[in-house]
Amino acid sequence: MEKEFSQLKPGYRLLLGPGPVDTSPRVLRAMSANVLGHLDHQFLEIMNETMDLLRKVFQTKNKLTLPMSGTGSAGMEAVMVNLIEPGDRAIVCVNGVFGQRMRDIAERCGAHVYSVEVPFGQPIDPDHVKEVAEKAGKIKLISVVHAETSTGVLQPLPELSEIAKQYDALFVVDAVTSLAGIDLKVDDWGIDACYSGTQKALSCPPGLSPVTFSSRAAEAIAKRKSKVRSWYLDLSMIGDYWGKERVYHHTAPINMIYGLREALQIVLEEGLEERFARHKLNSEAFIRGIEAMGLNMIAPEGYRTPTLNAVRIPEGVEDIGVRNYLLDKYGIEIGGGLGDFKGKAWRVGLMGESSRKNNVILLLAALADSMEQQGHKVDVGASIQAAFDVYNS
Amino acid sequence: MEKEFSQLKPGYRLLLGPGPVDTSPRVLRAMSANVLGHLDHQFLEIMNETMDLLRKVFQTKNKLTLPMSGTGSAGMEAVMVNLIEPGDRAIVCVNGVFGQRMRDIAERCGAHVYSVEVPFGQPIDPDHVKEVAEKAGKIKLISVVHAETSTGVLQPLPELSEIAKQYDALFVVDAVTSLAGIDLKVDDWGIDACYSGTQKALSCPPGLSPVTFSSRAAEAIAKRKSKVRSWYLDLSMIGDYWGKERVYHHTAPINMIYGLREALQIVLEEGLEERFARHKLNSEAFIRGIEAMGLNMIAPEGYRTPTLNAVRIPEGVEDIGVRNYLLDKYGIEIGGGLGDFKGKAWRVGLMGESSRKNNVILLLAALADSMEQQGHKVDVGASIQAAFDVYNS
Repeated sequence: MEKEFSQLKPGYRLLLGPGPVDTSPRVLRAMSANVLGHLDHQFLEIMNETMDLLRKVFQTKNKLTLPMSGTGSAGMEAVMVNLIEPGDRAIVCVNGVFGQRMRDIAERCGAHVYSVEVPFGQPIDPDHVKEVAEKAGKIKLISVVHAETSTGVLQPLPELSEIAKQYDALFVVDAVTSLAGIDLKVDDWGIDACYSGTQKALSCPPGLSPVTFSSRAAEAIAKRKSKVRSWYLDLSMIGDYWGKERVYHHTAPINMIYGLREALQIVLEEGLEERFARHKLNSEAFIRGIEAMGLNMIAPEGYRTPTLNAVRIPEGVEDIGVRNYLLDKYGIEIGGGLGDFKGKAWRVGLMGESSRKNNVILLLAALADSMEQQGHKVDVGASIQAAFDVYNS
Repeated sequence: MEKEFSQLKPGYRLLLGPGPVDTSPRVLRAMSANVLGHLDHQFLEIMNETMDLLRKVFQTKNKLTLPMSGTGSAGMEAVMVNLIEPGDRAIVCVNGVFGQRMRDIAERCGAHVYSVEVPFGQPIDPDHVKEVAEKAGKIKLISVVHAETSTGVLQPLPELSEIAKQYDALFVVDAVTSLAGIDLKVDDWGIDACYSGTQKALSCPPGLSPVTFSSRAAEAIAKRKSKVRSWYLDLSMIGDYWGKERVYHHTAPINMIYGLREALQIVLEEGLEERFARHKLNSEAFIRGIEAMGLNMIAPEGYRTPTLNAVRIPEGVEDIGVRNYLLDKYGIEIGGGLGDFKGKAWRVGLMGESSRKNNVILLLAALADSMEQQGHKVDVGASIQAAFDVYNS
């Protein structure tokens, strides 16, 4: 070899960005179990368990509930490419980068897309969706992002679901940054198709995208007149591998599925309600601490997802300088802004293993230190005291 | 939880099927390193190293050489969906299940496909491809499977590459079951686009698909008139993440890339020539042993890939019975036949960590035992002696 590569030894990091977030060593241990064949009965049992666990976390009885062999965006594409046939009409709600991505993908699938668009950082107004639906004619689906990873906006879902039902459209939800961190009742809220990613509140390394489809959505796939444009993501075939038939489609990413199974167990051992409460508490403490140092959140109150906390960068503070300082001096990763918020926001992920009191306190202190390096002095004592007040109330 | 799940503890397996195959504990150890952010400079360096290592194993200088975030079939789809625009003409060589899959995917991408088809188990005749190319008019690409995982047929490539050049078509090669097990000279053989999987001769768990594109192929992507139909696999964007620009596309499967980097190092520490020779020797010994017990190979001599050894099941022996016996009594997994060979062939993978003298000797013995259970007595001594003769000559 011309160049010698050393052993892989990534340095210390505290992952408080938009994902990946910290992973339990239990998940890494599960991932390093010996590989099984993808048709081995031992592995088929692991698949069944993983589907059962996923149904519990998605709060659904949907049969078609499984992890797609790709990251969250593969799940987004899987939902769109399976549900949309060229020429179908789709309403896509856009209030951030991931809404834009949904629209892009829906268009590539051949959909005629009606956007319901509001500025980045704002929630979608259901009345607006209704207006568009009224004019659009027969719609195949209405899609929305539950927790916008680019802005931290949390979108209430039940009312939008009602509208979808009213217009006989499938209701599609991006739950990448919400699943296992915020309440998400797939069945009770009438969600027809939903996808997520493993590297957010599930606290597993990136690589899989859990998806779930209602029987209505599964029927829409079964009734397609044209082949799904993607072979790799074609659920009419993938469903046969994960279903009773066990027909080989592609070789499943065995060890990633080991990891997901373990991560899901950890979620359910904690309990969904307890987990949602923990995410809410830590986010609340962080927000109070941020506000006490005179900074503001991007998302309006009442529409903030506790998993992804987007902070407006104050005047006179330079984005990259702060993030590099956090990384160099504290080993802490937070995210920068995306799209309209590039250079204007920090995105703090408090998800899964990363959603901890210790991390909140430390990050408030580290942020204060980082800004002080740029001459922007904030009251670190007041900030941390505000966080204490949340924890001790 | 209604049901208690136990710790994940897959039982012993010796993976001698079509993949996944055995993985070095070094790879599993690398995969369990702490997760890094996908834009962390530490991870960007790991990406650079992985690309460098991949280029060496692909024997190419191609800039656009990277692992796609999906299994081998995602690589197949990535190549087709990026190179083909609706209406393009493509010649697809079909002599097994993976050739059929290529054709299916090319059609879903909107290609007008000309098949060059021969019975399963036979190699493609270059003259046949030339005839079709002569009649087809302007062709975008000619694609072929290097080592057909469904039949074990090894396809010589240089002559087909010549034909592609002659008709100004891109030459596309499926190297899923050949990369790192058989010689594959991407540059010297004029291959324009090539994809593989991690779970074959690279001996890594499944989950990634290494791909490489020549500058000609990259130019064809850059010159597209229409958007790539798949957002997830769109190389015009993915190339910007793996390239100098480092633009976020999707969250890379961090820990799988750790594993691939380690697996590639192991390949290069052994040396490509030494590795190819090892695969050849073990396959040769296995084949002599199989023939000495009166069984036959599917692929004709001179066209056999040493990575995947497909054996014709003798009259009176029942496929599933033998495979279940191997699994239950020896913990050995081999593959069954696919497509035309369902129930008629066993597929023995001798790839990567699984390609070992010990495994060859053991499997010959275990196969003899399994068949004897069904009353099909073979000369196990002669079989093992024939293998010895290969190793000791």
